[in-house]
Amino acid sequence: MRLAIPGVEILDQTLLPRREEWLRLETVSAMREAIAELRVRGAPLLGICGAAGMALAGEERGTGEADLRTAAEELAATRPTAVELSWGVQAALEAALAGPDDPGARRGRLWRFAGAHMERRAREDLALGRYGAGLLTPGAGVLTHCNTGALATGGIGTALGVIRVAHREGRLGHCYATETRPLLQGARLTAWELARAGIPASLLPDTAAAALIASGRVQAVITGADRIAMNGDSANKIGTYGLAVVAARHEVPFYIAAPRTTIDPECGSGKQIPIEFRAAGEVGGFGNQRWSPEGLGAYNPAVDVTPGELISAIITEAGVARGPYYQSLPELLAQP
Amino acid sequence: MRLAIPGVEILDQTLLPRREEWLRLETVSAMREAIAELRVRGAPLLGICGAAGMALAGEERGTGEADLRTAAEELAATRPTAVELSWGVQAALEAALAGPDDPGARRGRLWRFAGAHMERRAREDLALGRYGAGLLTPGAGVLTHCNTGALATGGIGTALGVIRVAHREGRLGHCYATETRPLLQGARLTAWELARAGIPASLLPDTAAAALIASGRVQAVITGADRIAMNGDSANKIGTYGLAVVAARHEVPFYIAAPRTTIDPECGSGKQIPIEFRAAGEVGGFGNQRWSPEGLGAYNPAVDVTPGELISAIITEAGVARGPYYQSLPELLAQP
Repeated sequence: MRLAIPGVEILDQTLLPRREEWLRLETVSAMREAIAELRVRGAPLLGICGAAGMALAGEERGTGEADLRTAAEELAATRPTAVELSWGVQAALEAALAGPDDPGARRGRLWRFAGAHMERRAREDLALGRYGAGLLTPGAGVLTHCNTGALATGGIGTALGVIRVAHREGRLGHCYATETRPLLQGARLTAWELARAGIPASLLPDTAAAALIASGRVQAVITGADRIAMNGDSANKIGTYGLAVVAARHEVPFYIAAPRTTIDPECGSGKQIPIEFRAAGEVGGFGNQRWSPEGLGAYNPAVDVTPGELISAIITEAGVARGPYYQSLPELLAQP
Repeated sequence: MRLAIPGVEILDQTLLPRREEWLRLETVSAMREAIAELRVRGAPLLGICGAAGMALAGEERGTGEADLRTAAEELAATRPTAVELSWGVQAALEAALAGPDDPGARRGRLWRFAGAHMERRAREDLALGRYGAGLLTPGAGVLTHCNTGALATGGIGTALGVIRVAHREGRLGHCYATETRPLLQGARLTAWELARAGIPASLLPDTAAAALIASGRVQAVITGADRIAMNGDSANKIGTYGLAVVAARHEVPFYIAAPRTTIDPECGSGKQIPIEFRAAGEVGGFGNQRWSPEGLGAYNPAVDVTPGELISAIITEAGVARGPYYQSLPELLAQP
């Protein structure tokens, strides 16, 4: 994402890894289309898109309060379950309204808010990456799952940010990335980021992760998280839990890397996290290709929950929390 | 596979599940092509194909010892690592040569051997299926991996044979089948067999197996095996080991279902089983479709090894072995 006032530019993730195409967006509806079609994705990046979408609203529709509120509702409704999206939209709206009703000043505040939010995210990613890289033994093989890189955050990423920093510091031995069925974010997006960054890396079928860990090639497993309960239970992309169970059996540390906004103070344990099930059509095929016959059901949850007891540490931009998490997570949240 | 003298008919598995097409084979080279192109696959079925291929040789090339030996070498060399294929070829050759050098009698012995071997396999599958079904609690949800059905054995299958018998006996609640990346035997072949048999079943991404087990929907995990060491360590399709680790954590029984020919008396432990690595191109894509960019390595082992300590029982056509396997497996092998 780039601010290119009076528009913004986004990298169309649906075309990756085949084509690297930047789209220029100048209207609220263009931003909504990009979000709905998953041209942009990843919780932190959606927060930035929400803020940037409000800046576009100021240019396109004017800065009257009613117009801005309508645009905010439209943007947030594009993906109603994306908490960071509505947070970004709402915070931008408040920034715009928190000053005189002068169109130029409001537009200025909207663009400044979007820019500042992007910069803050990038700084936080970097801080998180440094904390995480410090946990890795030199030459470590690191296994990651799904996409948690620049494509998901707009900064250097969370779990993949840790891997980037470790690579830059010369501490990384090799990165292993799962394909991440059914939506293949690892094979499509993480592989693209790793190849582009020149990080020594291998892709593996999700089925090969347990054998890889058993082989001794992996010294740490790092994934992101969608939502972290106060006892450390963490919801993340389907497949994360299985990696954590196998890592524990082989005494390989399993880390979660996520911004503190992922920690939910209202959520005491993973049992309270609702599991979203996705369309059956995602299983047994990809894109236009079908591999399996009609007539079967599908079991296709979007996320699973890894119990805090299997998580060696939770890495955030404000530091590293270890169990017992009901003590360490409130301390982390209390920091500035 | 059907014997249709002077030829044989095979179901072309590369066209499944889209098309169900039976090919008529009448020559050694046609059988070799079918084996090499994976139109037929699965260790037990390849043994039958080896025997049937020798019967074709008798029709096509005559029954002189030199001609039969040449055909045997050609057939066995088609997939040199397939132990059952060379076993079937060799046993058929011996059956042919174990009588007078009369062309009609030799051809007769070759066809009878192929037919008897097919029938024996089918009987063994059925016996195995009954032993396995007896281990399931009524209404059990059963998770399986890869394809171990009729397509792999020519009978009712091994692990999938257990599921078939349990369904027929009214003991099966639901069958869950993994997609089985990278070659998707679950999504393509097992799904086709389950749909065709009318067994209530769901397909899942390999990533969802751990969440499925944690959810309580699964009362048993059953897979096949490629090779079983005398301490119970079992090599099988990549992904099996991870399922066993998660099943153990949730105290869900994990069963191996395989004919006794899979048990290798020369192999003391899984450490002696060589791991075959397959082409990098299988990862990050399927068929003609590529999802991932160039420039990454791949970690793509064909099999992993599940330690005997994680295996609740090994189900064979001669009964069920439980740990300690170094005692129970020799007893099983000693039975008629």
